[in-house]
Amino acid sequence: MKLGRLNHIGVATPSIEASIAHYRDVMGALKIHKPFDLEAQGVKVCFVDTPGEGGTFGTQIELIEPLGTDSPINGFLAKNPLGGQHHVCFEVADIDEARKEFEELGKRILGPTRLGAHGTPIFFLHPKDMQGILTEIMETPKEGSHWSN
Amino acid sequence: MKLGRLNHIGVATPSIEASIAHYRDVMGALKIHKPFDLEAQGVKVCFVDTPGEGGTFGTQIELIEPLGTDSPINGFLAKNPLGGQHHVCFEVADIDEARKEFEELGKRILGPTRLGAHGTPIFFLHPKDMQGILTEIMETPKEGSHWSN
Repeated sequence: MKLGRLNHIGVATPSIEASIAHYRDVMGALKIHKPFDLEAQGVKVCFVDTPGEGGTFGTQIELIEPLGTDSPINGFLAKNPLGGQHHVCFEVADIDEARKEFEELGKRILGPTRLGAHGTPIFFLHPKDMQGILTEIMETPKEGSHWSN
Repeated sequence: MKLGRLNHIGVATPSIEASIAHYRDVMGALKIHKPFDLEAQGVKVCFVDTPGEGGTFGTQIELIEPLGTDSPINGFLAKNPLGGQHHVCFEVADIDEARKEFEELGKRILGPTRLGAHGTPIFFLHPKDMQGILTEIMETPKEGSHWSN
């Protein structure tokens, strides 16, 4: 595999509304996208942009709030009631090729490849096989590494 | 404050050597910098580059391994023996101005402003005041957002 962009860091929060106020009023984020429900993954999602080098797009902050009582991030928030760093997401050019490579290395993949928050195929790798980090692998959007919703 | 680049994510590891092998052999990182001791902060440090958009520099991964028995990350590794996401670091144009703004907002700052791993002034903010995330604020290097060591 060839390491691609660090597309986003996933940040769990008990309240996207409160987190938006934090990134806007405390951190001074200039662009905060509209939150939306990602029902298939049991989370409400909101992307916060950070600038890249020379006016390019940088790594985003993906705020995730539990959607329903079965949300997979309820356990994380029970342990970390304020929220915190939940996962990291790297881009790859070809999701199927990346999946095959991780499988060949014996890395545990959590569930099937599915559509992620940016509408491109993703999968997650088990943190115990990834140096303690829940790692998302995402195919780079065809139109490039950024988006407008 | 105006949110700057996500300069790096800080990743604690019990072994920088093992982490280098992971980012090189599993993740396919093309550029891994030479590790060095940051004695003032009690850590050994190694930066791993990720690509930015259009060939620019992206957010780095800062691997940190304890240096000595008093290292401030020993507690984190006792709780997370495999390592994991330790902190995030955002750039600002003026470190003194940023410090003043966080102080005025009542955010707890951990210790004095000091030189960080990139040789520019930094300070850390208490995770309990920052949505559960240990947050480093770093002045953008004068020569730009990248480096060569």
